[in-house]
This record gives sequence, structure tokens and C-alpha cells, in this order.
Amino acid sequence: MIVISERINGLFASVSKAIDGRDTKFIQDLAVRQVECGAQILDINTGPGREDGPAVMDWLVRTVQEVVDVQLSLDTPGAKTMEAGLKASKNRPIMNSTTAECKRMERFFPLCREHDAEMICLTLDERGIPNDAPSRAEMAMVMMTTAMEYEIMPDRLYLDPLILPVGAAQDQGKKVIEAVRLFQTLNDPAPRTVVGLSNVSNLTKERSLLNRTYLAMLMGAGLTAAICDPEDEELMRIVKAGGILLNEKLYCDDFLRA
Amino acid sequence: MIVISERINGLFASVSKAIDGRDTKFIQDLAVRQVECGAQILDINTGPGREDGPAVMDWLVRTVQEVVDVQLSLDTPGAKTMEAGLKASKNRPIMNSTTAECKRMERFFPLCREHDAEMICLTLDERGIPNDAPSRAEMAMVMMTTAMEYEIMPDRLYLDPLILPVGAAQDQGKKVIEAVRLFQTLNDPAPRTVVGLSNVSNLTKERSLLNRTYLAMLMGAGLTAAICDPEDEELMRIVKAGGILLNEKLYCDDFLRA
Repeated sequence: MIVISERINGLFASVSKAIDGRDTKFIQDLAVRQVECGAQILDINTGPGREDGPAVMDWLVRTVQEVVDVQLSLDTPGAKTMEAGLKASKNRPIMNSTTAECKRMERFFPLCREHDAEMICLTLDERGIPNDAPSRAEMAMVMMTTAMEYEIMPDRLYLDPLILPVGAAQDQGKKVIEAVRLFQTLNDPAPRTVVGLSNVSNLTKERSLLNRTYLAMLMGAGLTAAICDPEDEELMRIVKAGGILLNEKLYCDDFLRA
Repeated sequence: MIVISERINGLFASVSKAIDGRDTKFIQDLAVRQVECGAQILDINTGPGREDGPAVMDWLVRTVQEVVDVQLSLDTPGAKTMEAGLKASKNRPIMNSTTAECKRMERFFPLCREHDAEMICLTLDERGIPNDAPSRAEMAMVMMTTAMEYEIMPDRLYLDPLILPVGAAQDQGKKVIEAVRLFQTLNDPAPRTVVGLSNVSNLTKERSLLNRTYLAMLMGAGLTAAICDPEDEELMRIVKAGGILLNEKLYCDDFLRA
């Protein structure tokens, strides 16, 4: 399974401060640490409420790219901020994200085509998040076919069923696992899937435990990638063990010894 | 998910010694500890190579029942040892287990009917363990229909796809997860499923990590019960978190605090 680091995000106070002061060292140290901890992709989020979003995204992408050579996931709802990230990206970027809302798809799929990017598709539209797995799959299908109208083939998409906090919507945990399985039946080869993992444990006291338990469940259901915290050591141990159990990584007798 | 303790097993040297000396206190302390740690069912295994199997099973069952009031899983391939356990059991016992071998089914299903017991059905026959999930499901179906010929309805069975050690058969991990899912489609209501969890980590150096990662994956696939070690605290934390994530236990804000 692919780990996408969630840590370069202006929502974190320390990152926000580093952005304000254009603290190159802080951001670069953070980026290097994510990759060292096992992230294959870095999510880049400027944080909420910035008027200088495009400039911040441009700076973050360039700053990170100076020290690590990985794919970036440009995480913003703003088209201009997204475009700034797309222009600055050296490797093929992932756009995070579009919803199934017509207005969003009409703005973001052309950008995706123009920049030969990949796209995370959230199963969410004007009416909200569907309540069950089949409805999420139906919406994912609409997004896949809409993308194809823009000449974006399914292999450039990641389908995201949208995890909800277990404390707020406890019935959704099972449904999201089922959605991850259903999504894989929508095309051949199976579409890729992604989740924003940490949302499941929002406002709980056992965040790491809930995150890693749920991630193992989702890995068992065939999840392709998770946006999560690679600095969470217990989580990463589950990721490594899971890769071996699912035959994605070669088993070796002492695979977790230093 | 239901936890069946694997610890009262003559394979463990300390238990074997306690059996030899008919050490009531040791066995009773062990039984109480399993239940306190969260086991809902206790597996009772006399251990290999005992000529006094029936007498040992009888003693173990009676000894355990004096201190805990839980269902027991009588774990033996011997018909006489099994029968001794069935006769001594106060609660409805689980027979662990029959395979799909004709000779085994012909001996064990009549015992199951006679004692109104439940039965663990291992998907294994004269030719060995099937290599993939559909073949395991086919064999499970044969066992379900054979059981019905003995008037044992599917709701008295647990289907076991047989976990293999990841170090020896790494390709089987995914297939067992798929089998657990497939088994649930074989009847309505869905048949119950069980695994002998610890087998997955046999001869590895990271037993607990592999066990708990795999258990979460299997829980996500809808597993009913696991024979495992309730004294493994990290495993039991995953079981508790998993129960909440799957909406089987009520979420509570501080569910894991003392």
C-alpha cells in the first residue's frame, strides 16, 4: 500500500508558521523526514483561509522538490492554487481533489488533462456524501465516465469513498470498507482507491489505535493508498506487516529488525 | 468479534506439566485470566500424544467449568477424547473440529447431533487444503450440506478457511481473507466464520504484530470469531477498536481508558 504523508499541511500550527515566515529549512526537514519514515507521496496543503494560496502552493512545491524526488498530491479546493502547484510540479502531480459536483469537475478535469495529472475523486456531490457503499460506487462511476469525456482514463484516478469520524457516524466504517471493495469492481484493471485515514479518529482519545486498526481493515479490502502520518511508528509497522501478509512485499524472516 | 482463547492447550509446556500433575489451581487460574482478558469462549486442547486423552479432556472441562461459565471449544482429532469433552460440558460445546474428509464427517457429525453441539468445519480434505478462496468455499458448501443430512443446520457451524504461516505460503494470506468473505455468501443468514489466528505468524520474529494486523484485516472482512491469545494486550486493543469501527460495540469517547 502507498503511504501519502498528511503532514505538510497548513492546518498544523507549526507548518502554518513556517509558511508565514517562508521557513525553507522547516519545510524541507519535514519533507525529508516524511520520506525517511516511508511516505512515497507527499500531500501538500496550504491550509485554510489564505489569500495568497497560489503563491504559497508554488513556494511549498518548489521548496519540497529541492530536497525530495517524490510525487506530490496538491491538496486544495481552489483552482488557482491548484494551477500554481501543477505548474511548479516536476513529477506528475496528483490533484487532491475533485468531487462529483458538476462545477468542480468542469474546472478540475480540464486542468488535469492540461497538466497530464492524476486525480483523487471524492464521492461527494451537491447533496452530500452518499449513505451506503453502492451509492458511493454509483457516484464513482459517474466521475470515471465524466473523466473519460475529458480523455482522462480511469488509471489516472484514485477513488475516495470519504471516511467519516467514527464518533460522529459509527455506521459508516463498514460501508467505507465495502465501498473500497466495490470500487475495485468498477473497471478492469481495478481502479485505484485512496482514503484520508485520520478522519476516522477525529475528536477521539485513541487516534493512533483507531487509525492503524482501520487501515489494516482497509488494506485487507484492497486499498491502494492512504493519506496518513508516516511518523506514527505503530501505524507504519502495521503497513509493513500488512504488505507482507498481502504478498505485496517479499517476506523475510527478520523483516522488522533494525 | 468473538475471542476464543488458545491458551488452555497441552502444546504449551506449562499446561502439559499442569495436566500431568492434575494441577487444578494452575488450570483454573489460567481459565479465569483468559476470561478476564476478554475471551468469550475457551478452546480446550489436551495436547499431542496422550494415551489418556479422554480422561484428560474430562478433567480439563470439569476443572475449567468450576471457575468460569463460558462456552468451551473442544479441540481434538480423537473421537473418544471429543466424546469425553462433550459429556462433561455444561454449556453447549463447540467441537473443534471436523475436516471435509468423509471418515471424519461420518464420526463427528453424529456426535455433534447427539450432543446438540456446534462444529468448526475446516476446509481440508484427503487432498489437502484448497489453494484458493472459491475452492475453499466449494468445500465449505459440501460440509454445510453434509451437516444438514445429519440435521445440523448451518447456524450451528463455524467455517474455517485454514490460515497458513505467512513465511511458508505467503500467497495464501489474501486468499483466506477472500474465503472469509465468500463463506458469508453461502447462506442467508451468513454462516459464521472462525480462524486459528496465530498460525499466520508461525516461525516469525514478529508474531504479535503479524497476528494483530491480520486479525484487523479479517475483522474488516466480516470474521465472526478467532482462536487467539487474549493475553496479547496489543491484539486485544485492536479487537476493541475494531468492534467500534465495525459498529459492533457502542462508541464511547474514552472507550479504552481504565
